[in-house]
Amino acid sequence: MKASQKSASAILLLVFDLLATFVFALEGAFSGVQNRLDVLGLMVLAFATALGGGIIRDLLIGAIPPNSIRDWRYATTAFAAAAFVFLGYRHLSHVPSPWILTLDAAGLALFAVAGAAKALELGIHPLLSILMGGITGVGGGTIRDMLLARVPAVLHSDIYATAALLGAAIVVAGWKLKVRPVWAMTLGGPACFLLRMVALRRHWNLPRVG
Amino acid sequence: MKASQKSASAILLLVFDLLATFVFALEGAFSGVQNRLDVLGLMVLAFATALGGGIIRDLLIGAIPPNSIRDWRYATTAFAAAAFVFLGYRHLSHVPSPWILTLDAAGLALFAVAGAAKALELGIHPLLSILMGGITGVGGGTIRDMLLARVPAVLHSDIYATAALLGAAIVVAGWKLKVRPVWAMTLGGPACFLLRMVALRRHWNLPRVG
Amino acid sequence: MKASQKSASAILLLVFDLLATFVFALEGAFSGVQNRLDVLGLMVLAFATALGGGIIRDLLIGAIPPNSIRDWRYATTAFAAAAFVFLGYRHLSHVPSPWILTLDAAGLALFAVAGAAKALELGIHPLLSILMGGITGVGGGTIRDMLLARVPAVLHSDIYATAALLGAAIVVAGWKLKVRPVWAMTLGGPACFLLRMVALRRHWNLPRVG
Repeated sequence: MKASQKSASAILLLVFDLLATFVFALEGAFSGVQNRLDVLGLMVLAFATALGGGIIRDLLIGAIPPNSIRDWRYATTAFAAAAFVFLGYRHLSHVPSPWILTLDAAGLALFAVAGAAKALELGIHPLLSILMGGITGVGGGTIRDMLLARVPAVLHSDIYATAALLGAAIVVAGWKLKVRPVWAMTLGGPACFLLRMVALRRHWNLPRVG
Repeated sequence: MKASQKSASAILLLVFDLLATFVFALEGAFSGVQNRLDVLGLMVLAFATALGGGIIRDLLIGAIPPNSIRDWRYATTAFAAAAFVFLGYRHLSHVPSPWILTLDAAGLALFAVAGAAKALELGIHPLLSILMGGITGVGGGTIRDMLLARVPAVLHSDIYATAALLGAAIVVAGWKLKVRPVWAMTLGGPACFLLRMVALRRHWNLPRVG
Repeated sequence: MKASQKSASAILLLVFDLLATFVFALEGAFSGVQNRLDVLGLMVLAFATALGGGIIRDLLIGAIPPNSIRDWRYATTAFAAAAFVFLGYRHLSHVPSPWILTLDAAGLALFAVAGAAKALELGIHPLLSILMGGITGVGGGTIRDMLLARVPAVLHSDIYATAALLGAAIVVAGWKLKVRPVWAMTLGGPACFLLRMVALRRHWNLPRVG
């Protein structure tokens, strides 16, 4: 790989990562408005929702300080999303719900595959790297729900964490088969996205006892 | 100590640790069923209940990545317990409650003494090593309760954390007196177990204000 | 600076830090009494409220083990406050509320400026150092509220986290302008304290949507 190519793909990955951060932060800030929080509450929820999953992953795999504490662009992106929601809530609340769910699925896919890849890079066992991908995808939303004193959606809702785990598992499988990470991620991301979208459309749910 | 002896005691400790993990994970998965969660929710609660305390301890004492992220056997044990509950709930729900409370007390004892011993090994101050033993014992259940949006049992219930702290304190006292760790743990574990069982039987509670 | 001077200022900082710990721990233990918790619950809430913010900050900036796990005096101070509340609740409940709010504002100011200064020292980016100051100030109360299964006050209440962020921002600005840290903290602390007190008096609130 030439240096220019490498740098281009690193930039692309950063852009994707910041986009996913922005989408998740928007959702966090939205839930803040719905709970009648002030502008600082919006910022807290935007930050926690967008960056909480990656922070937990980084603490667990030993990448300390976590990426989003090392690099100011993540927090800035999250706070920009909170400001955006605060100033433009009237207009944003007209954005059709399917658009938001689609963007959210894309963010989930990106976080899950990137999270699994990072865990593998740091030498974490494949099984736990899958788990780290899942945590990266759903950890932020879980923290947000805990802050709002409600049972995290991930515990009872439809195929959400499952999609993240699928994407992460494909990245790990690719790594096992010595496929180049970028290909495994190119396959795992869309797989996560598709499973999530189909599950939404068909109202799929995981089985329960009884 | 001969090498074969050392390896035998290490294996014994691992077996005990995985057994305690299994018992705590069973309880986590049970509370998932009681809250009508799906199979993934059961897995999350099994993992958090069984391994959350040890993970918090390891983060706090600087053993990063935590043991249960380093070693795939812990997560596998927790998920096996979740699968076991999911598939066998009908039969498991007939297990008499005293059995479960006894197993839980045994798991608590093991986690508490092992947690304190690990903190001491990493050079943590004796007072805080006792605390780390307590956190190892009750941390997982606390995370589970927070995920279920209820006040953690440890804050208001009977002699539970107290028993964990007693076991941990005996390990720390033994270390101060230069007793071999294995003896201090052999004394501290049963002490924790006994206090817990007697407190359950006699409905002992800690004092409150007013 | 002479060695004796340096040691004097280090001692002063430690004394302030332990005083702030004591005040926050008192408040944590108080909320335990109000929720009818037992003496161990009071200790847990005292510890979490007083030391939780600093622990999160230390984990995030990579100062592991966190200061309050390294140094036994912090936990001892928190537990002393819990014992104090447990034994003297009848008398303490007559302390006028403005006194408590004033002490709390002082503790907040100290934690916020010390937290930002520590993050800067460890090479954290200025923007994130401000955030770390804020987390040091409000993190403990947030954990306490989460343990009590209620929405953290910081998300919806008056100018509290904002005051912490102001104090932290002044420390960071001073660092940027190469002012000696002790002066920046001497300015930032009172600024935080004053903003908090004035906001309380005038019932200032942050704006909300709608």
